[in-house]
Amino acid sequence: MKPSTMFTGLSAFPLTPLTDAGIDEPAFERLVARVAAAGVDSICVLGSTGSYAYLDRAERARAVELAMAGAGNVPVLAGVGALRTRDVLRHVEDAQECGASGVLLAPMSYQPLGDDEVFGLYEDVTANLSVPLVVYDNPTTTRVVFSDELHARIAQLPGVLSIKIPPVPADPEQAKVRVSSLRAGLPGHVTIGVSGDGAAAAGLLAGCDAWYSVIAGILPEPCLAITRAATAGNADLARSLSMDLEPLWQLMARFGSYRVASAVAEDLGLVSAGNLPAPVQGLDGNGRAAVARALEEMKIPG
Amino acid sequence: MKPSTMFTGLSAFPLTPLTDAGIDEPAFERLVARVAAAGVDSICVLGSTGSYAYLDRAERARAVELAMAGAGNVPVLAGVGALRTRDVLRHVEDAQECGASGVLLAPMSYQPLGDDEVFGLYEDVTANLSVPLVVYDNPTTTRVVFSDELHARIAQLPGVLSIKIPPVPADPEQAKVRVSSLRAGLPGHVTIGVSGDGAAAAGLLAGCDAWYSVIAGILPEPCLAITRAATAGNADLARSLSMDLEPLWQLMARFGSYRVASAVAEDLGLVSAGNLPAPVQGLDGNGRAAVARALEEMKIPG
Repeated sequence: MKPSTMFTGLSAFPLTPLTDAGIDEPAFERLVARVAAAGVDSICVLGSTGSYAYLDRAERARAVELAMAGAGNVPVLAGVGALRTRDVLRHVEDAQECGASGVLLAPMSYQPLGDDEVFGLYEDVTANLSVPLVVYDNPTTTRVVFSDELHARIAQLPGVLSIKIPPVPADPEQAKVRVSSLRAGLPGHVTIGVSGDGAAAAGLLAGCDAWYSVIAGILPEPCLAITRAATAGNADLARSLSMDLEPLWQLMARFGSYRVASAVAEDLGLVSAGNLPAPVQGLDGNGRAAVARALEEMKIPG
Repeated sequence: MKPSTMFTGLSAFPLTPLTDAGIDEPAFERLVARVAAAGVDSICVLGSTGSYAYLDRAERARAVELAMAGAGNVPVLAGVGALRTRDVLRHVEDAQECGASGVLLAPMSYQPLGDDEVFGLYEDVTANLSVPLVVYDNPTTTRVVFSDELHARIAQLPGVLSIKIPPVPADPEQAKVRVSSLRAGLPGHVTIGVSGDGAAAAGLLAGCDAWYSVIAGILPEPCLAITRAATAGNADLARSLSMDLEPLWQLMARFGSYRVASAVAEDLGLVSAGNLPAPVQGLDGNGRAAVARALEEMKIPG
């Protein structure tokens, strides 16, 4: 089996802007339509950036439904994670019924999980899947640390077609070692996608097949340019285009990509204030001012 | 305001045994009735041991309802934590409607939370409360690390009457320093309850007012004996009674109190196999054998 093109290139992770009443549907539809029009390779709604962990079943199903309507021909992936396997299976069922092309699954945890428990989750879910699955490795939010051995075990399960990994090291040689070491244990049809937007050029140049991108949900064009340059083997251009966004990478390192993405979208008028789920708060005044300065420095019109 | 007796002494945290279909209601009712009959000072359902994080709104409301019916005159506290403030407020509403005497709130997190976000959660929830609240400080599951300053800020909020803290140091002097340091910032009416059952005698002897206990949900009598000895100032007896349960404390240190409590209850015939929410798994064969040996060593009949 060859790698699916759906799990290569640039995947954009839009925010799910929220209001007190639920999803800000018009704003969400605009975000999805914007990235689809830009020509990204896939759209993943309900990622961490899409606040999946905070949404109930009905809200999640609605988000997938809206995304399907707005994405045109661009494949839509949907995050389906939950603390309990039972709920993951419900979200999978809903995503499939809405027509999602694939699902993204992070092993959320409350009680810390052992490797056999994480494997058991993926085993139970893939046994009930009719679309491909992306394994979502995000220790900052799930507190699950994947070893390469655990990735290799899970990647053998039917339907697993990609792994979304945390940022690779900035050093090109170390990044290559990281990606090759993981890839050595994977079947050939499983792609590796990098996350941590500031590390994306490094990841793609080190051999990652995809970039699972937070900021592409808001600024798809510069992310597409980086992706196309890197996958064409034009390392200098990819690095230089990534350097152009350095003020953004610095903000994300300082405040986290979730809150920064929300503030950028707000600054650009794409979403309203108060779009994150309490108790999570948006950036404070200083943070917002730093975002505005960064956008100005990068000549991204507010 | 003087400390409430509801937040002193021994609080038992029963498991919420689960089946594929939902809560094992007869088993849960038996667990609650057993600890009530033993004469514990309060019963806290839907703590971490009570699997609150894995249950939906209807299951949680049902658990409180069942507990109220089985607890007799013993006050019932209910865990109300959720990742989103909106959902916490719903659980609070349900717990109050069912007649719970208080609520227990841990700041669950997916996106890591800052101190202002944690404070904001407690601020929003206490503004909507008609019963007292216990602040639940459990970094292993929530990944929120409370400073004493944060505790002091939250303890000023109306309705906050107790704090459930992680294990104190085993060394008596260090334990006293820990408890006094926290207490120095708290209003006089806010009690401190220790958790981590192996550290309970040390915590009570170091000045904690309460023991929020996992194992008292299954073995209330020996826990009551430890609590009564410690609060009567009989340090040697309290330590010696705690030492009698050392095999259990060792198992909890090795496998975690949640999975050990489930296995002990299963060994004693109080709950059925498979009572934890997937992806969490019960102890494997070796773990179960160790539990059986420990119970035998402690002369607790299986």
